[in-house]
Amino acid sequence: MSFPKPIEDLITQFMKYPGVGRKTAERFVFHTINKLDNESVKEISKALIDLKEDINYCQVCNNLTDKEICYICANEKRDESLILIVESPKDVFSIEETSQYKGLYHVLNGVLSPSDGIGPEELNLKSLWNRVAEKKVKEIIIATSSTQEGETTALYIKRVLQDTDLTVSRIGSGLPVGLNLEYADQLTLTKAIENRRKI
Amino acid sequence: MSFPKPIEDLITQFMKYPGVGRKTAERFVFHTINKLDNESVKEISKALIDLKEDINYCQVCNNLTDKEICYICANEKRDESLILIVESPKDVFSIEETSQYKGLYHVLNGVLSPSDGIGPEELNLKSLWNRVAEKKVKEIIIATSSTQEGETTALYIKRVLQDTDLTVSRIGSGLPVGLNLEYADQLTLTKAIENRRKI
Repeated sequence: MSFPKPIEDLITQFMKYPGVGRKTAERFVFHTINKLDNESVKEISKALIDLKEDINYCQVCNNLTDKEICYICANEKRDESLILIVESPKDVFSIEETSQYKGLYHVLNGVLSPSDGIGPEELNLKSLWNRVAEKKVKEIIIATSSTQEGETTALYIKRVLQDTDLTVSRIGSGLPVGLNLEYADQLTLTKAIENRRKI
Repeated sequence: MSFPKPIEDLITQFMKYPGVGRKTAERFVFHTINKLDNESVKEISKALIDLKEDINYCQVCNNLTDKEICYICANEKRDESLILIVESPKDVFSIEETSQYKGLYHVLNGVLSPSDGIGPEELNLKSLWNRVAEKKVKEIIIATSSTQEGETTALYIKRVLQDTDLTVSRIGSGLPVGLNLEYADQLTLTKAIENRRKI
């Protein structure tokens, strides 16, 4: 047996989300029925539609924005000689939360992964080369993940830019702050030792 | 700093769901942006609205249904001399999944809980007394949870019905099937010994 159709339909919809199995989807649906009034449900429904309609990609850096150009690229106080390259818009927001970085960003929307058919053409690299050609940039910081794909992507960008005057750097890699040494994996420890700094 | 408004709005909406904190809500929103096309998002949005519009309570047993009377009450093959009392519509579906019970249901929509201000008036008890007054029912099985509130509710119903000819029973309580004895808590073990049966 199964639930009445409107319940089954919403269960199916919730199961489209990552980490949401049948049981969790059922819980969400019963929560919708029992705890949310009509007004709240209309708000959720509207927020979903609005998101898809209003959110698009910044024409400069490819970050998510509800304008043509994101509020970071539009901010004249940011240092336009610095571009930090990240994989996804979420990474931009993570770095912005530190309130330490004052340059601009460039969002690749992915990393090179030949086995998944993702080559340089699939990433937002063309717009990066265009930005570099404008000559305002002096340093490129590559902040792709510390995974094999992230490293490959970083090396690829470094190689393309090697004949320019740009400084190309890679974010530091090592022991996360606050992590006890005994809990670090071997690769992280190896990197941390390689990247040792004089104090 | 925070995300653009349409993103923040949907994060707030997702956080209305049980077990969904800020990080999970963010993950859901980015999944909506990156992995779901416009068509999918419209489907989710519609399923939410449809659920609230089409789902209501069965006029007989108070189960959830998209008709006036739920498919269980409407099924003439069910044994109308038996009513099984549960706390929520979800319990009905759990019991239906066993395919063993052939009687009808009555959904209380809660349990007695004086500390939360839930007295007999707040539960669907009046409609139960009406059903009992119709004289078709011979046995009432009380299947509220094995919690203090569930037991209090069962006792209350038992007391109201004690001067009728009805058989009032309580579902069995004891060791869950498949559970190793050593993992059972003391109360469950005590109940299991109390409820021993000759074999």
